[in-house]
Amino acid sequence: MNYFSSDFKLGILGGGQLGKMLLADTRKFDIQTYVLDPSEEAPSRMGCNKFYQGDLMDYDTVYEFGKKTDVLTFEIELVNLEALEQLEQEGTKVYPSPKTLRNIQNKGRQKDFYKTHNIPTAPFQRFQTLEDLKTNLENNSLSLPFVWKSAEFGYDGNGVKIVRSVSDLANLPNVECIAEEMIPFKNELAVIVVRNPKGEIKTYPVVEMEFHPEANQVEYVICPARIDDKVAAKAREIALKVSEAFEHVGLLAVEMFQTENDEILVNEVAPRPHNSGHYSIEASYTSQFENHLRAILDLPLGNTESKVAGIMVNLVGEEGHSGQVVYKNIEEILAIDGVTPHIYGKRETRPFRKMGHVTIVNEDIAKARKTAEEVKKLIRVISNS
Amino acid sequence: MNYFSSDFKLGILGGGQLGKMLLADTRKFDIQTYVLDPSEEAPSRMGCNKFYQGDLMDYDTVYEFGKKTDVLTFEIELVNLEALEQLEQEGTKVYPSPKTLRNIQNKGRQKDFYKTHNIPTAPFQRFQTLEDLKTNLENNSLSLPFVWKSAEFGYDGNGVKIVRSVSDLANLPNVECIAEEMIPFKNELAVIVVRNPKGEIKTYPVVEMEFHPEANQVEYVICPARIDDKVAAKAREIALKVSEAFEHVGLLAVEMFQTENDEILVNEVAPRPHNSGHYSIEASYTSQFENHLRAILDLPLGNTESKVAGIMVNLVGEEGHSGQVVYKNIEEILAIDGVTPHIYGKRETRPFRKMGHVTIVNEDIAKARKTAEEVKKLIRVISNS
Repeated sequence: MNYFSSDFKLGILGGGQLGKMLLADTRKFDIQTYVLDPSEEAPSRMGCNKFYQGDLMDYDTVYEFGKKTDVLTFEIELVNLEALEQLEQEGTKVYPSPKTLRNIQNKGRQKDFYKTHNIPTAPFQRFQTLEDLKTNLENNSLSLPFVWKSAEFGYDGNGVKIVRSVSDLANLPNVECIAEEMIPFKNELAVIVVRNPKGEIKTYPVVEMEFHPEANQVEYVICPARIDDKVAAKAREIALKVSEAFEHVGLLAVEMFQTENDEILVNEVAPRPHNSGHYSIEASYTSQFENHLRAILDLPLGNTESKVAGIMVNLVGEEGHSGQVVYKNIEEILAIDGVTPHIYGKRETRPFRKMGHVTIVNEDIAKARKTAEEVKKLIRVISNS
Repeated sequence: MNYFSSDFKLGILGGGQLGKMLLADTRKFDIQTYVLDPSEEAPSRMGCNKFYQGDLMDYDTVYEFGKKTDVLTFEIELVNLEALEQLEQEGTKVYPSPKTLRNIQNKGRQKDFYKTHNIPTAPFQRFQTLEDLKTNLENNSLSLPFVWKSAEFGYDGNGVKIVRSVSDLANLPNVECIAEEMIPFKNELAVIVVRNPKGEIKTYPVVEMEFHPEANQVEYVICPARIDDKVAAKAREIALKVSEAFEHVGLLAVEMFQTENDEILVNEVAPRPHNSGHYSIEASYTSQFENHLRAILDLPLGNTESKVAGIMVNLVGEEGHSGQVVYKNIEEILAIDGVTPHIYGKRETRPFRKMGHVTIVNEDIAKARKTAEEVKKLIRVISNS
């Protein structure tokens, strides 16, 4: 297949920042792209060959868009699965496959999948509704505390709640859900796996999420994770097993817990480029975006190892600020060696909206970590009004 | 000035591959761009906010385009200088400045500039026409052999000829020209300098052009150059001096000769991102394109040092092939660690047309050099007919 400066067309469902960063690589290789997104201000509206505005959950919209393309991928999981299945049946290559996506979209089903495939994960119970869960709690067939997770449509901490007492259930929606045992853990880790249709497979190094000591929010994604080599090797091995079990094609971000006993438990996966891999643009031999592209086009995979250590800081809208965005002190952080801001291209900021990220690279991870702290203290995403 | 996700507009004259690679960084920072190019198939037609088709040498076209922008830059020297001067007078920031460009566009004037500023360069004589040159040759006020260079509009070896006998002058155009003394040299080197309006200035490491032993064509651009540290330091020092003498803003690529006696002579300069800096996308902390952008926006300059060694191989159209391009064996080179092809996005190949380049990076420069040779042997830019 001739992808380069040819008539071949790659379709991308979703035009957010992940799509935008993927487009940097389709431009580098001069591969034609069509993008579908509901917003006319989508970050990917530029840099693609054709931009279509439309609903990603609508069967006809996704089906008709897909029919124009040769290979179809997505940068967001919330897309119409039935349309993808129909397109696949009719010969469009859809990567990751709708089958994989179906196993991932529903968290209950995802957890069952881990159990079936002997992939270590925290013990859990599935419930069709919140009412079912409450009945089981009353029966003592479920015990407090636990982590409640909505089975579908959760993202970025939405649809997740720690339940310590019955009153914590008060405002939860009456939807399909799981209750997961609370596991004390030392570290939250992630491993990105890339696999192509031929079955060639590689993992990126293990990254570590460092949390703010008080706010309980991820502050830094650090590559490589500052953990024991044996634990790192185990994490990469489990991630490989997850990708192979799913017969996944493209990128799979595997989020994990390192328990107090150095066990590795799979938390959840994302079948696409992932926030935990953004560092790779500057730090890796091949970025996660380029490798996703290589994988879904069945090209040889690129080297996943790092040139230098990398740390990523998210740029999210500050509380109390809504409106036309201003990146305060961005000139100050640009003056620091090894600092690269990525601005996603959203004109309006809102509290906690993901507006960009900053990568810090250095040969010495301790120096990078120190710089990351400087960056975090300086940069502010505010509005000019 | 707020450049990021704002109403600010950067204008770029020329929409070739240099513009295209610059746009990757304007997208990363979400800076609005307008591009002007004569071809509707220009590589930069995508990834800019607005693309205008028009003649870069036409006063009105350039002037009207420039009036729509806040800062204006160019990726090609052959632009209407008078329009740039008028725009600058009326308050548009033009970087590099028309004054610098005027000193560079004419090679005779450029050589005079070096003489005035005590910048080492090969001895030369200026002539208003080829007839003048011939008269001087007959008078013995010029002696064979020498290098003839057209004063204007030369590029990529066009407008340059080694003259060993009078018959070599036969088919040369009767235009303003210079005759330069032939200097035996060990190496062709280049140093890219970046300087912002505040006067902050940095050089990239010295790169070396390695020539094919028979074809006398540059085969590899190698960073860092495999030369003595003292010679490298001298080359960087001279490059700094050149940029400061020009009061240059933006990137300045300084091409030099290392003579048999380890003298450094400035050959010529290019006031823009340059082929000899393409390696920087993968190998440097900050690519030449990002640093050009930082410089012309008067932002702090990024680190110009390298993460790893880098080698660049040009992808040029093979002789005997014209038409729809095919990059033969591109999958084979993608299978090699540290290899990144850049495809410029020209649908039609022609003999010797610049179609793309390949960067090879490795911690070990000797390994990178070996890989570059493999790449060079494999990849072929042909047509499918």
